[in-house]
Amino acid sequence: MEYFDRLDQELESMWSKIINEAPLFRAIDENRVDKKLYALYMIETYHYTLHNARNQALVGVRAYDVPPKYTKFCFEHAAEETGHELMALHDVKSLGLSENFTIPPPLPETETLIAYLYWISATGNPMQRLGYSYWAENVYHYIMPYVRKLQEQLGLQNNQLTFFIAHSDIDEAHAAEVREIIERHANTDEDREAVARVMRSSLYLTGEMLHGAFRAYGKLRDGEPGAYGFLQALD
Amino acid sequence: MEYFDRLDQELESMWSKIINEAPLFRAIDENRVDKKLYALYMIETYHYTLHNARNQALVGVRAYDVPPKYTKFCFEHAAEETGHELMALHDVKSLGLSENFTIPPPLPETETLIAYLYWISATGNPMQRLGYSYWAENVYHYIMPYVRKLQEQLGLQNNQLTFFIAHSDIDEAHAAEVREIIERHANTDEDREAVARVMRSSLYLTGEMLHGAFRAYGKLRDGEPGAYGFLQALD
Amino acid sequence: MEYFDRLDQELESMWSKIINEAPLFRAIDENRVDKKLYALYMIETYHYTLHNARNQALVGVRAYDVPPKYTKFCFEHAAEETGHELMALHDVKSLGLSENFTIPPPLPETETLIAYLYWISATGNPMQRLGYSYWAENVYHYIMPYVRKLQEQLGLQNNQLTFFIAHSDIDEAHAAEVREIIERHANTDEDREAVARVMRSSLYLTGEMLHGAFRAYGKLRDGEPGAYGFLQALD
Amino acid sequence: MEYFDRLDQELESMWSKIINEAPLFRAIDENRVDKKLYALYMIETYHYTLHNARNQALVGVRAYDVPPKYTKFCFEHAAEETGHELMALHDVKSLGLSENFTIPPPLPETETLIAYLYWISATGNPMQRLGYSYWAENVYHYIMPYVRKLQEQLGLQNNQLTFFIAHSDIDEAHAAEVREIIERHANTDEDREAVARVMRSSLYLTGEMLHGAFRAYGKLRDGEPGAYGFLQALD
Repeated sequence: MEYFDRLDQELESMWSKIINEAPLFRAIDENRVDKKLYALYMIETYHYTLHNARNQALVGVRAYDVPPKYTKFCFEHAAEETGHELMALHDVKSLGLSENFTIPPPLPETETLIAYLYWISATGNPMQRLGYSYWAENVYHYIMPYVRKLQEQLGLQNNQLTFFIAHSDIDEAHAAEVREIIERHANTDEDREAVARVMRSSLYLTGEMLHGAFRAYGKLRDGEPGAYGFLQALD
Repeated sequence: MEYFDRLDQELESMWSKIINEAPLFRAIDENRVDKKLYALYMIETYHYTLHNARNQALVGVRAYDVPPKYTKFCFEHAAEETGHELMALHDVKSLGLSENFTIPPPLPETETLIAYLYWISATGNPMQRLGYSYWAENVYHYIMPYVRKLQEQLGLQNNQLTFFIAHSDIDEAHAAEVREIIERHANTDEDREAVARVMRSSLYLTGEMLHGAFRAYGKLRDGEPGAYGFLQALD
Repeated sequence: MEYFDRLDQELESMWSKIINEAPLFRAIDENRVDKKLYALYMIETYHYTLHNARNQALVGVRAYDVPPKYTKFCFEHAAEETGHELMALHDVKSLGLSENFTIPPPLPETETLIAYLYWISATGNPMQRLGYSYWAENVYHYIMPYVRKLQEQLGLQNNQLTFFIAHSDIDEAHAAEVREIIERHANTDEDREAVARVMRSSLYLTGEMLHGAFRAYGKLRDGEPGAYGFLQALD
Repeated sequence: MEYFDRLDQELESMWSKIINEAPLFRAIDENRVDKKLYALYMIETYHYTLHNARNQALVGVRAYDVPPKYTKFCFEHAAEETGHELMALHDVKSLGLSENFTIPPPLPETETLIAYLYWISATGNPMQRLGYSYWAENVYHYIMPYVRKLQEQLGLQNNQLTFFIAHSDIDEAHAAEVREIIERHANTDEDREAVARVMRSSLYLTGEMLHGAFRAYGKLRDGEPGAYGFLQALD
């Protein structure tokens, strides 16, 4: 189907840019990651993941003029994603941090992503959040090679990567379901354009979050004071 | 457990009052119902049911300081309830109305119930909506005898009572689950008091809705003009 | 103008019913009020007033498809009502209670009124909250004779009735403004019907709150334990 | 006061970067603007301005644990900002467009800014939106020289710049008021840090919007199809 081909092509090109330009991916590629960077990134992952189930459910709460099957999908999908932030937190803790650190607030770039996802869930075309799901459920295709490289460099066990490993399994099924929902329910040009727009913007903002995480890591490495200081405990 | 005994005793007493005083129950008991009354009541049922999945999910959307298991319950429960309003609508239509009538807006009493359920879902103690589920999932114990009487009086088939029959099956499992969730997660006196308060108020407002529906029926029967006029087509 | 005449006639008839039937008004008429009753009622007043400015502003927040003049009215009106709950609280305290009592949560009837006002502000016809303002700003015409009687019975100074006295002054101007806004902006039959419906329902729920307050007072007088127990300190 | 000095210094440095790097400012400085660019930018201005009064009021709607004076400020400030988007729209139309064009949806960068402002208004520290007001009310100090240059280049009358000219007058008084509110009510380190964080992030996202507008202009100039195509009518 031509529409999905166009989405996939655009994703391919956006991911290629992110992978080639985001310093986080560059660092992995060039064997320059350490546990601090992985931990910092997983804390941002914790933050946006905490909100994902909620903004997904919000679509169902506010959309009356949609097929009940789509509303049901929103709630079921939200139920499945609930609590996944705890996997991210587990993986951070597994690096050897004392149990009781205070989770720093999200970085501005992470908060912007979170804000955007609530906004497009709470307003506008009720189908549009599927644009986020469309790439998010397919993300592992792009990132798992880098997750594996990072695992090797840091000498992590599979049970220290629960977030990524669990998701790469779960999300294959989700991806097919998301595509099917789009095919069935995003019936108008306006729907499809809204899905494409949110796909693009939410991936762009995720790329910005990667940049933000690396900048925060730079400050941490340089010894600047900040909410991430406690990660200095990780060698 | 003493707490649930107290809840059950209070429900018993409130239901007894509703059944003895609400003219809808009196009419059923005294063989005075007609299809207009059943249809009118099912339209109100359509309205609040349309919102039930949504206000249930809203609890999960806004509650951060609760165990993820409770959040998951909210979304799963919402998913299960999604679209049930269509059963109510089906049952109305099955009475012999032309397909394309405009559903009248909810009666003030129904809108008040809906408003209250959103309010207690969106604010206050995050456990408190369980007080609504607690009685709503157990409702069939009280009302099925009257549903059966009504079925007999109106000569309805089971497939004209899909809303009640489906729910009486589904909700037995739900009732046990709701009780378990309260037992596990409503841990403080404040939680339990909030659950009890919402149980009481939401059942009270449901009783008010029954009164309101009967008053609207009275006007309809008396030939007053109004949004329910189209039900005159039902003999 | 015929429309407002109809609204006024309906208000006249609803108020007449409330004044003749609500036990609070009966008690005032028959010299049976005490400070406990006045205090209890003013605590409920505190609660709904705390929310009035907020639900008024919410109309402006969510209504995009209205004339900016109406949006501006919502925000200005909200600004003017902000903090008025403190007058109610001041009047309660002036009766001789120690400063530091905990304000009891609203009664179920009060919470229902609050919930309803948020609901009709956040959803539905954006003009409809004017139906609440329409009677609320005109309330003093009906109730001031009873406020004065109560003042006499309880021997209260004007500065112990700041809520009622301030509002009877402020609201005369508001009433004219509300009427003007309805005339200008409630242009369709649907708008005018929504305004009338909310006028009716919100006044009905206010009547219910009066009943609820008197029931709570009865329990207090009978020595039942409850959140209002601290009012026993008032002779 | 040291806190405000730090804010001002940070603003100085952020603005200096925006003015030196944002291609919109570069274009103005180098006499390369045309009416298309001005119109496109004013359409984005229309979009975020439409939401400013609303997200400002939202702070007052949801913040209970703040001094009523701050709540009142939120509503008053919202009332004053209501309808200002119409000035932006007026200025676009004054360039010679036919009256009835459809306003294109906001660019992704503009929508991100809007989303962020709702998010920080609806959640988190209730003082934090003052961080946006703090720079937004002082913006004219930085941008008016560029507005005047642009006016000269495009040969615009003052009444084609109503948005900027009106705001540069209004906002001087606002700026003092915002500072006073921060001084009085942002009392804790947490409050002040939240204000600073939102100041920083919202100005950053505004800078991103400037970049986005210029990118959209580039596409328009290059003849790419898109929602802004109608601006080709402007020479």
